[in-house]
Amino acid sequence: MSQSVPSAAVLGARAFAALQGLNRFTDEPGKLTRLYLSPSHRQAAEWTKGAMEVAGLTAFIDAAGSVQGRREGPVPGGPSVIIGSHIDTVKDGGRFDGNLGVVAGILVAQALRDAGIVLPFALEVIAFGDEENVRFPTHLSTSGALAGDYDPAWLESRDAEGTRLADALVAFGGDPSGIAALARKPGSITAYLEVHIEQGPVLEVENEPVGIVTAINAQSRARIRITGEAGHAGTVPMSLRKDALTAGAEMALALEAIAAGHEQAVGTVGVFQVYPGATNVVPGAVEFTVDFRCPSNETLAAMEAAIRARFGEIAARRGVGLTITTYAKAAAVPMDPGLQDALSLGVTRTGANLSPRRLPSGAGHDAMAMATLCPAGMLFVRNEKGISHSPLENMTAADAGIAIRVLLEAILELARRES
Amino acid sequence: MSQSVPSAAVLGARAFAALQGLNRFTDEPGKLTRLYLSPSHRQAAEWTKGAMEVAGLTAFIDAAGSVQGRREGPVPGGPSVIIGSHIDTVKDGGRFDGNLGVVAGILVAQALRDAGIVLPFALEVIAFGDEENVRFPTHLSTSGALAGDYDPAWLESRDAEGTRLADALVAFGGDPSGIAALARKPGSITAYLEVHIEQGPVLEVENEPVGIVTAINAQSRARIRITGEAGHAGTVPMSLRKDALTAGAEMALALEAIAAGHEQAVGTVGVFQVYPGATNVVPGAVEFTVDFRCPSNETLAAMEAAIRARFGEIAARRGVGLTITTYAKAAAVPMDPGLQDALSLGVTRTGANLSPRRLPSGAGHDAMAMATLCPAGMLFVRNEKGISHSPLENMTAADAGIAIRVLLEAILELARRES
Repeated sequence: MSQSVPSAAVLGARAFAALQGLNRFTDEPGKLTRLYLSPSHRQAAEWTKGAMEVAGLTAFIDAAGSVQGRREGPVPGGPSVIIGSHIDTVKDGGRFDGNLGVVAGILVAQALRDAGIVLPFALEVIAFGDEENVRFPTHLSTSGALAGDYDPAWLESRDAEGTRLADALVAFGGDPSGIAALARKPGSITAYLEVHIEQGPVLEVENEPVGIVTAINAQSRARIRITGEAGHAGTVPMSLRKDALTAGAEMALALEAIAAGHEQAVGTVGVFQVYPGATNVVPGAVEFTVDFRCPSNETLAAMEAAIRARFGEIAARRGVGLTITTYAKAAAVPMDPGLQDALSLGVTRTGANLSPRRLPSGAGHDAMAMATLCPAGMLFVRNEKGISHSPLENMTAADAGIAIRVLLEAILELARRES
Repeated sequence: MSQSVPSAAVLGARAFAALQGLNRFTDEPGKLTRLYLSPSHRQAAEWTKGAMEVAGLTAFIDAAGSVQGRREGPVPGGPSVIIGSHIDTVKDGGRFDGNLGVVAGILVAQALRDAGIVLPFALEVIAFGDEENVRFPTHLSTSGALAGDYDPAWLESRDAEGTRLADALVAFGGDPSGIAALARKPGSITAYLEVHIEQGPVLEVENEPVGIVTAINAQSRARIRITGEAGHAGTVPMSLRKDALTAGAEMALALEAIAAGHEQAVGTVGVFQVYPGATNVVPGAVEFTVDFRCPSNETLAAMEAAIRARFGEIAARRGVGLTITTYAKAAAVPMDPGLQDALSLGVTRTGANLSPRRLPSGAGHDAMAMATLCPAGMLFVRNEKGISHSPLENMTAADAGIAIRVLLEAILELARRES
């Protein structure tokens, strides 16, 4: 039956045209800035609802601000497959991050309807609204609402201008009291699938248009403080120094080596502050951050142990004080193996020249929240130079079309499995 | 004849009493802040002039603001030995830095007069006024005036409040037009000797009250800029990174190793700035400073070559851009070997238990300017914990007394050489 659906090229062209429509809505003219519950978010939600309806879905904007579209399967109210992503963006963000995944879902629903394909399950497309977590200190709140994992304290949180989330939600047209009812029943969702720009350079380097996500990486973040002894850069001999900066430098290199030594792991020192920070003073203290991620919780624990051991050894040898304060930690979220296989079949059915490359996701996504509710799978699209969260974020229409066609083939594969 | 001069203990007690008097003069009550040409500098200069006169010297405040005291030798206007240091301080500085050296000169002149010792040369004590170079962007201007090395452009320089140095000098009671005449004739000065607190921890660690300076170190300072590629800390694999921070960390450790590998050398990264400086972003650029010093110009050149080679190798291996901009460089100023020997004899004649430890100076001093005019020698005094430029700067009265007695014995040794 897949002969009757549009080609990847057609789907890619449709996706780029649709994105041009959706991305008119911004909080800042000349940039793409669409924060959760802003006026432009409301406009984008209305546009999305309209696009879903044109694609044959019954659509509404839910109590938390997500747009939900659904076409029933053979049993009204029966199990569904959800295609989702988000339509909020970071400040001055890219065109594809989130938006492409929503458009992909709509175009797949439309293509299936146009081809007269009847699925053995309901098909839903959802445009979440709070994935970037820029405006409020929430964490995937709109997909969390569906997963039954919405913290009511979030409603009391405030944005930088002091606006409460609950008030912003009411102004948007949402309903704080209706959020609890958004939670889906366990077992009611067969699968959650999400297409997303990679936000990294791996697929480009390997010359693959799409990649199947194996897991959303486990992650740990810590603040490190090293206390040495400040001194005159001219008069304190090297042998008598307790230089906090060189101790920190050695630790940054140790983190780099530990990350390089673990499969698919990354480790980063992104902030590094020196005290007092004068040319002629041996640094007395430094503070820096470490951020490390990998696809498995066991590897993360092994990395953390190696970091603590190496940092401790460096501090002891150099005679400096060391404090490690872990302030954020997230377990790995493995993607469902059955959905990985369905996406893999989708890749090979989309093009004989395509290989089903698998890779972990270093960034978080709505699929993390949804994976607590149902099997979840993600497909990454090649990202020019790996640049994301930037107006320079880019991909080709050809790659976008391949991704949407793979998603469509994966849905057909799920249908086949049920028949 | 040295039997008739005061003991080290007596000299130390006199020095601490004198410092208590001199250090009443400050620009900031509760702190010791005495900037060049400030009202408290004028008061301290008057106090110093009085103390010199009581010690039997003919004294005046010169055109540049230095206090000059002199007792003629056998030939009026004949060659002299100068004991000098400075009475300006940094903001919230220590009690001994500079002031001790001036008091030491006065106490030596007084002790020689009281003992009826006649020297075969004139004895001068000079309290310079612009050693710390805090208020104006000058470089040892008052000792430079004696050495015939005064840049007239300094008179046009301004302090942070916009006051011209020339105007401040007139308000102080000095005379810009008289500075050129301060220059001493080459050959007219037999020796310049200076006692100074070490401003470092070496003598304390080695349990020596005093040390003889071999040279004021050669010094080079540069700004380093590394340009890598910023990226998402979660999504850019280690193998594809061009992390400017880890490149900089490796260079900081290379500098540390190069300094440790050269005799009496030091090397410091004191400033280290990261761009963009966010926890979840691989640093795209870093800027840092390097400051390295050692007693010989040849060693400094070897260090610089090693730094350029290692930094270049690190940048090339990591695929990052590297810019090295040297912005300050000073040649080593060796202290006169004959004066080092005179001070060494002074040490052994002051105490059988004392050893004539020799060490370089990592910081600059008026002796640098004077060394262009005449043989110069310096004696360092043990510094509690090496802390200087701070109200915590400290030494014992016993050590101060030993230093002054060594200075006195060195003067007697110079007298012996001429007789």
